[in-house]
Parts: sequence; C-alpha cells; structure tokens
Amino acid sequence: MSRTHGHDLSRDTIAAVATPPGVGGVGVVRLSGPSAAACALRVFQPSAAGFFGFSPRYMHHGRILAPSVDAPDARIVDEVLAVHFPAPNSFTGEDVVEIHGHGGPLVVAEVLRSVLSAGNDLDVREARPGEFSKRAFLNGKMDLVQAEAVAEAVAADSPAGLALAQTRLAGGLGHRVADLRDKLEALRIQLCIAVDFPDEDVECLPPDALTRDVCELIDSLQALAGAASRRRVWEEGGLVVLAGRVNAGKSSLLNTIAGSNRAIVTDRAGTTRDYLEERLLLDGLPVTLVDTAGLRADGELLTGELDPIEAEGVCRSRSLAARADLLVLVLDGARQEPLAEPERELLAHLDASGVLIALNKVDTWARYESTTPRSPLSRLADTLQSLGLGSLEIIPLSAAQGVGVDDLTRAIRRRLAGGDTPPRPGELAPNLRQARAMHRAAEELDGLLQDLDAGIPYDVLGVRLETASHALAEITGAIASHDVLNAIFDSFCIGK
Amino acid sequence: MSRTHGHDLSRDTIAAVATPPGVGGVGVVRLSGPSAAACALRVFQPSAAGFFGFSPRYMHHGRILAPSVDAPDARIVDEVLAVHFPAPNSFTGEDVVEIHGHGGPLVVAEVLRSVLSAGNDLDVREARPGEFSKRAFLNGKMDLVQAEAVAEAVAADSPAGLALAQTRLAGGLGHRVADLRDKLEALRIQLCIAVDFPDEDVECLPPDALTRDVCELIDSLQALAGAASRRRVWEEGGLVVLAGRVNAGKSSLLNTIAGSNRAIVTDRAGTTRDYLEERLLLDGLPVTLVDTAGLRADGELLTGELDPIEAEGVCRSRSLAARADLLVLVLDGARQEPLAEPERELLAHLDASGVLIALNKVDTWARYESTTPRSPLSRLADTLQSLGLGSLEIIPLSAAQGVGVDDLTRAIRRRLAGGDTPPRPGELAPNLRQARAMHRAAEELDGLLQDLDAGIPYDVLGVRLETASHALAEITGAIASHDVLNAIFDSFCIGK
Repeated sequence: MSRTHGHDLSRDTIAAVATPPGVGGVGVVRLSGPSAAACALRVFQPSAAGFFGFSPRYMHHGRILAPSVDAPDARIVDEVLAVHFPAPNSFTGEDVVEIHGHGGPLVVAEVLRSVLSAGNDLDVREARPGEFSKRAFLNGKMDLVQAEAVAEAVAADSPAGLALAQTRLAGGLGHRVADLRDKLEALRIQLCIAVDFPDEDVECLPPDALTRDVCELIDSLQALAGAASRRRVWEEGGLVVLAGRVNAGKSSLLNTIAGSNRAIVTDRAGTTRDYLEERLLLDGLPVTLVDTAGLRADGELLTGELDPIEAEGVCRSRSLAARADLLVLVLDGARQEPLAEPERELLAHLDASGVLIALNKVDTWARYESTTPRSPLSRLADTLQSLGLGSLEIIPLSAAQGVGVDDLTRAIRRRLAGGDTPPRPGELAPNLRQARAMHRAAEELDGLLQDLDAGIPYDVLGVRLETASHALAEITGAIASHDVLNAIFDSFCIGK
Repeated sequence: MSRTHGHDLSRDTIAAVATPPGVGGVGVVRLSGPSAAACALRVFQPSAAGFFGFSPRYMHHGRILAPSVDAPDARIVDEVLAVHFPAPNSFTGEDVVEIHGHGGPLVVAEVLRSVLSAGNDLDVREARPGEFSKRAFLNGKMDLVQAEAVAEAVAADSPAGLALAQTRLAGGLGHRVADLRDKLEALRIQLCIAVDFPDEDVECLPPDALTRDVCELIDSLQALAGAASRRRVWEEGGLVVLAGRVNAGKSSLLNTIAGSNRAIVTDRAGTTRDYLEERLLLDGLPVTLVDTAGLRADGELLTGELDPIEAEGVCRSRSLAARADLLVLVLDGARQEPLAEPERELLAHLDASGVLIALNKVDTWARYESTTPRSPLSRLADTLQSLGLGSLEIIPLSAAQGVGVDDLTRAIRRRLAGGDTPPRPGELAPNLRQARAMHRAAEELDGLLQDLDAGIPYDVLGVRLETASHALAEITGAIASHDVLNAIFDSFCIGK
C-alpha cells in the first residue's frame, strides 16, 4: 500500500516509552521521524570500537548517557541495545530508532528524558497517545481498521476479544468493506452513465436491477454490522453487580466464583473504598463481577447513621447497580424473611428483567424445615409473586459450601450471552465505530430505495450512493477527517 | 570476564515475557538457551521471501503462528519483529531470541504460549523469576553486584535510589570489593609463608604490621558498609503516617502535601478500604505518606459502635503507626481541646521521638483569640508539658489555606534524613546484603586482632582471614552457594 491521504510526511520527530509502565525485564523508548537517528546518536555510546553509525535493523550494544551541562563527565543512564529502522521499512513508515534498556519506570523515564533533551534542537518532542499508529496510517502502512485492531488487540482482556481483533488486524474486514465500496462505486458509475446518456440504445440501469443490487448491498452491510452487537459481549464482557445486605454473603460468593473461574490476565481487580471488583472468564465470556457495599434502606442514609464516606459508598453501589448488565441480588437464606425492606426497595427501582436472585446459605435450612410448613424457597417465591415479581429467577446456593454456585454462573452466562458461542477464528466482526458507519451506509441505501419508489430522478439518487460510499470509506480511512482520526488515535496509549 | 563458577552451561531453554505486565506499545518474549533459535523458527513466519534463518542481531519482520493440532490453517497470533543474539554475545551469554510484538497482556501471553508449545520437545520451558540474570551471572557476563543492581535499577522509585543502583551497575563497587579481597588474600599468603618458613632470615609478617594492615582493612570495610545505612533512606524512603481523628483534616493535609511535591513515577498510590497512600519526593527524599482511618478511642471498638470492617481499618491504622518511621499526629486546632482522650491514648503507646504534631486549622483561631486568655498553641504546649511530652515538636498550619505546610515537609525531611544530602552520581554504597557481608568480614578481622593479642598462633589466624575473604567473595559472587544465588535471583521479576 502507498497512500498518503494528502498529508505531508511529518517534519518533527516523536519519542515515547513504548513498553507498559511498571517493572519488567525490558523497557523500550521509541523515536519516529526525520531526526530519529541523529537524536539517538547523541545519547547512544556504542560498545563496539568499529561503530560508524547504525546498520539498518541491527541491534547495537552500548550505553545511554545523560547529557549534563554542569557535570564534566556524562552520567550513564542505562546499558542498552539500539536499533534503527530506516524509512519506509518501519512501523510508522518513517525513520524509527528503538532503544531497549533495562525495564523499570524510572530508568525508561530517564532514557526518554535524555533523548528529549538531546533532541531539543532537532525538533524532537514527546509523542501524544496513538501518534506512532497515526503516522503508520497516514504513511499508508495500514488501514484504519488495522490501526484500530492493533489498539484493540493490545487492550483485549478476553481470548474472544483478542481473536476478533487479530482477525481485523489481518486485514480481512478492511478488504470486505473495500469490496462493498467497490460495488457501490460501480453502481454509482452506472447511474451516472444512465443520467448522462439517457438516449443510448441499451438502458444502462433499469430500476429493478438497481433495486436488486442495492438490496444486496444493504443485506451485506446489515449482516456485517449485526455481528458487532452479537460479538460485543464477547469482547467487552458484561458487568454483573452483586447486591444485598451486609451479611448476605456477597463477598464469599464473589470469592467462590472467582476461585473456580480462571481470572483474566490483566490486573483490573482491585479493592476500593466502595467496592470489590473481579474480572472473570465464565466459559470464555468475560465478566466483571462487582461486590458492592452493603445495601441499606434509604432511611438509614437520611437519619445519618452512616458516616459520610460510607453513605457515599452506598450511593455509588446504587449507581453501579443501575449500570449493570445483570444484577444478582444476594439474599440471606438463613433469615426468617430474606426479602426485607431494603431489598424490596431496590427491586422496586430496577427493571426485573435484569435481575437474578441468589438465595444464599441453603446449608442452614435444616433447622427451619421442621418448624416451618413450607420451604424457605417456596416462601420466597410466594413473596415475590405477591410483589408482582413472580418471573424473577431464584437460584438457591451455599457460597460457603460451594453448592449451587455453578448453577449461578451458568445462569449469568445464559442471561448475558444467550445461547451464543464464542467467535470462531477468522470471523469478521466490526467494532462499534465501524458498525455505525455500516448502518449509516445501509440507511442511506434504504433512503435510495424509497426515493426510487417515489420516482425521484437518478441524478438525485447518485448523491445517496456517494454518501453511502463515503461512510464506508471512513471505515478503512480511505477518506477520513482530522476529527475522526483524532478521535480514534487519541484513545490509544502513549507509545503505540 | 569469563567465569563459569564450575557450572555447566544450561541444557534447557527458558522463555518468558520480558516487558512489564499491562498495556503498551511493545511486548517482548525472550528465549535463552541452546534451542532458542530452533524453537523460535517453528513459530515465526518471516515476511521476507529470502529468509533462510536469523541473521545475528538483525530484526526480522514476520508473524507468530499459533501451532494448532485441530485447525488445518495455523492462526496468526501477532505481527512481530524477531531477533537472534548468538552466544556468547547476548545478555545471558547463551543463544537468545527476542520476539517483539504488539503490547497487551493477552497478546504476549499467547505468543509465549505458542513458543512453549512449539518448543515442547526442544526442552523449552517457562523461565523462573530472575533466571535470565542468573544465567548471565553464571556465564560470567556480570558479577553478582551488577546482577543485583539491574534488579535494583528496575525497581528504583526514587532518582537517588536509581543513581545508586546505576553506580553499582557500572561495576565500581564490585571492583572496590575485589581490591579489598585481594589485599586480604595477599595478607593470608604472607601469613602462610610466615607459618611455613618460620626460620627465614627476614620475619615475613611482624605482628604490628599485621595489626596495621588488618586495621586498615576493617576501616575500609566499615566505611563502605556504613554508606549502606546512610543511603538506605534515599533508596527506600521513609514511611510517614498521618494519624488523627476523623475531622482533623488528615486527607486535606495529604492532598496539599502531595499537590506541591512531585509524585514518583511508579504507581504505588492507591486507596484501599483502610488507608490512602501517596508516594512523594520531598526535595529528593522518597517518602510514603499514609492517611490512616480516623482515630478512635479503644472504648468505641469495644462497645461495638464501629462495624467490623471499620474496626479492622482502625486496627490496621494502629499497626501502621507502629511501623512508621515518623508519625504525624494531626490535631484539630479549631477544637477547644485538640488533645482529647484518643490522641492521648495514642501518644501513650508511641515513642515520642518518632512523633511530630501538626496543629491544623490555625486559620480558625481568630474567633478564639478574643475570648481565651492564651493562644491555642501555647495551651497545647502546656498540655503536652503536663503529660511529660514537652519535647514534642508542634507545627501550626492550615491545610485548607496551605499555610505552614512547607514547615511540616521540611520537618519531615529533617527528621528522616537529618542533614544528609542525596547521594552524588558515582558514590559507592552497597545494598543491605552486601553491607552485611562486609560487616561479617570486618567482625572476623576484629576477632583476628583479639586473637593476635591473646597470642593465638598465626596458622589459626589464617582461618579468620579465609572466612573474611569468603564473605567478600560472596558479595561479587566469586564464591556463591546455590542457596545464596537462589535467594538473590528469586526476588527478581520474571523475564529479567
């Protein structure tokens, strides 16, 4: 590929730490732009006596020296390997230099500082988020779908999400969209011919042929865009909130579920003042499971029985519950009346279709069985019925003894993903931005069909085709405004 | 250098992710051992048609394929650069291959999985923590001080700590220790000669010459070891705990201090259920400042006014206070009696020499001035005097208005570091393990001096010299037991 999108090659050189922050074995500082090599040579002291400049793509051993004004002897910042990728055979398509040092946040920060300070008069500056990828796109090294896929693969935290990103990275989706756009453009040319040469012997494009071709395009676009929403839960996962009163056993339930479901690699888990969060894989489906602060009735908030911090925690729990894809209300099955005022209040505020009930502590039921005529489970079902909530699914379990917990995780998975299976390798599914552009194109083509029915002339219909084609061009970036590009690349991490 | 320490070169090949965990632009998987290249070639699909194997240190573009048994077409895991460092010119001294892919925890984990699965029959296995560095040491690529310095530089979270690690990495400390050991060994040889040839004309080593030489060695060792404790606060920093009742203004004080003192790069900060922690640099001195849960009197814990979680938070606050290098007791200067029961109780449990008092909210004093005969400050001083705590330093301030906060940070810095200045570049200071070995050597030499006074014969003294020499040899690893090596390298991160 060699597109330049009408942009000039960059005149300045950008530099950033390219490895994740934190402690590791290797830390990489990356430079891209016309002064990359010149700048790197100012701070890099090669070990080899016979060094007369970078050999392309060869990893040279040496040291990074901190340029110092006041000290006569330059200080050694790190022992490194430096490598130069001459343009255009680099990630960005520009001259790129990478400096590979020992990991460690302060070390790489010092290497970067040395580079920036040495490159001060060479137009070297710190890179903005996504700027390396943006330059790679602008220099025609990859299309926009691929650039996004790089960021998506990096951020993926479920195998299914990674597989979808890898497929987009391989370029298949971009090609599919380009194919559809080619068909649109061919149609547009036929329309133009029909308009310009209306008196030709052969009628270029009879309305029924146009209708058929446009319908086919709409179907293709909708099928492709539809995969986005179907696949989204596999990429992003669902937010499942555990709610319930303080002693209902939410924490032990969370721990039991987390213990038997391999946690995801990324470190999203964390205790905060307000809630405990675990990122899990339920049979391939990524799920964020949140244990909220204990539920309290509104009254307690108002009478000031809670301290302000705790009260805020309860408020945030409620807002989390409102955002959840699924709320699991954990009830204390050991209580005579598991569904008391706070729980009823919560249920009253929620859409029952997004709620599951986990009736915990079934292991304690033996002592009730003899004295009560009905089982706690059927009593609870009756209570729910009387509240008009008879449709709520109840899962009896014992978090402490691990009984019934698998029933709960299966129910969660079913509620979030239905009977859907994880994406197959090679399956094409656009991301949300791409799907939206496909929908825009399909809507435009729908409008064209209606216009055609209404007898609107071909030359006006051509504008519809052009708009639809433009929407598809935005997907791959064949046409892309600065705003669109900025919105995309700004969301990348620095160094990418 | 070319030492092998009597160890064979490894027969197996190790592999690990070498970049920090998390999201970034580059993720590196590193292999080291005899099968590194063979294994990498099984998963690496080069882009260039003319690829017939790795060129040394050249970064080849290509893709990593997931070896799959069931799928006929191998899946692309990542687009990568692969580079081969033939032995012995590599970090470990063995054959090393690095695979540089897109960052992202799942992507690099998949690349590593592909490598391990492809290398199954090539004796390729996952590396243990520090194993690359251990091999580098065993293959004579660096001494033990340098290997430790690599890990210390990576983990450094203050510029002073980094500078000290960099100096050790440069090798100066190892050379200094080797010099001292050479002197010890020379002395031991003279002692042996004196023992073996007692009737020689010239007395080889008169007792006063031996005493003088040993004293010189002890002085050198103690001076070098002394630098460790003096420098430790600059590397590790001090733990400063803010204590005080809920509304004394601890949080706003923490925020004010954190706001005006550049936080350290590493992300150690974090809110937990129990306390809020900030890592700061006070004029070069790394300080961990912790805001603990509000102070309560013991009684409140017992009468059950706190919920169990909150109660545990208070308990942990107290244990933090006990571990602190300095405790800043924040008092609410707006109260009529800032030093009430909980504060007095806390002070009664602590060593007053590790306490500073921050009398907050001085901005509210105007309203008291007219009605009370004495200033709140002098009243507090009197109260402390009556409690036998007249020596406690009181710093009046207003966290809300930023008044007096600099006085507090200066006082904190003075209490932690005294008048000491940050280490200069190039300053030699051992770490704790190294300093301990120096102390052991110095003690052995002290024992030798006493033995000499007691008239113990030279051939027995020789054992003392040997023990001291052995202690020094452990510092650089010239002699090192498996236990010592394991203890050191196990503390490294994986991939290092």
